[in-house]
Amino acid sequence: MDDFEIESDIVGGVSLLRLPRITGSNGSLIVAELGGGLPFVAKRIFTLLDIPDSETRGIHAHRTCEQFLICMTGSVTAVVDDGVTRREVVLDDPTLGLYMPAMTWGTQTHYSADALLVVVASEVYDAADYIHDYQEFRALKGL
Amino acid sequence: MDDFEIESDIVGGVSLLRLPRITGSNGSLIVAELGGGLPFVAKRIFTLLDIPDSETRGIHAHRTCEQFLICMTGSVTAVVDDGVTRREVVLDDPTLGLYMPAMTWGTQTHYSADALLVVVASEVYDAADYIHDYQEFRALKGL
Repeated sequence: MDDFEIESDIVGGVSLLRLPRITGSNGSLIVAELGGGLPFVAKRIFTLLDIPDSETRGIHAHRTCEQFLICMTGSVTAVVDDGVTRREVVLDDPTLGLYMPAMTWGTQTHYSADALLVVVASEVYDAADYIHDYQEFRALKGL
Repeated sequence: MDDFEIESDIVGGVSLLRLPRITGSNGSLIVAELGGGLPFVAKRIFTLLDIPDSETRGIHAHRTCEQFLICMTGSVTAVVDDGVTRREVVLDDPTLGLYMPAMTWGTQTHYSADALLVVVASEVYDAADYIHDYQEFRALKGL
C-alpha cells in the first residue's frame, strides 16, 4: 500500500490517495511523482473543464490504460465499478488523487461549474483501448 | 518542429505550444500526449496555487530535468533564460504549454490570485539536479 493511500481497493484495485501539500508564505505546492503518489509514468494528460452539471462523462473502461484523476478546482463525483461493485468517490480537493487501474468502468458526474479535472494516463490515445459496452466489459472480466 | 508549436526556440530550446481543445455541448477537453504536445514521459506532476502576486518562484535551472508548464486557471508570467537571452512568456490559457528543456534558467512571477500552474516534469525530485546560482548556471553552459 502506497504511503499516501487514504483508501485502497475501493473496487477492483481503485485507490484514493492524499497527495502531499507544502504550504508556506509563498503559496502552496502539491506533488505527485513516481514512487510518491503517481502510480505510473504518464504519457498523456488531459483536462476537462466547462462541463455542464447535468453531464456524465467517461462511461467506459480501458483495456490497458491506467488513469489518475485530480480535481484541481471545484468538485466532481467519480463513479468506479469493477463489474461487480459500484462506488462513488467525491473529488473536491486538489490533494485528492484517484487511481483507476485498467479494466475499471468509470464515469464522472456532478461537475461543479468551476470544476477542472486533470486526468493523467499511462498510455497515449488509442480508440481500440476503449470498452464502451458494460456487458462486454463484464464478459471480458469473466463475469 | 512539433505540429502544436506557436513559437520554437524562444531561448535555448524553450518552446510555446498550443494544445488542442475539443469543445462541445458536453464541455471542453484539452489534451497533451507523447507525440502530440507532451515533449516527454512524465514522472512528476506538481501544482502551484495560492501564490502571492508579489512572489517569484523557480529561480533555478535543472541539470537534466525537462519541464512542461500549463497555467490551468488565471495567469502567470514565465521568465526563461538560456544564460545569454531572457524572455517573458505570459501563460493565461489552459491550452498554452511551455516546454523548458534541461539547463533553462526559469522563474515565474505575477501570479494572478486564481492562478493554478501545473508543472509536468521528466524526472522525480532530486535536490542535486537543481542549480540555484545563476553564475554557476552560466559557467556550466560554458558562458
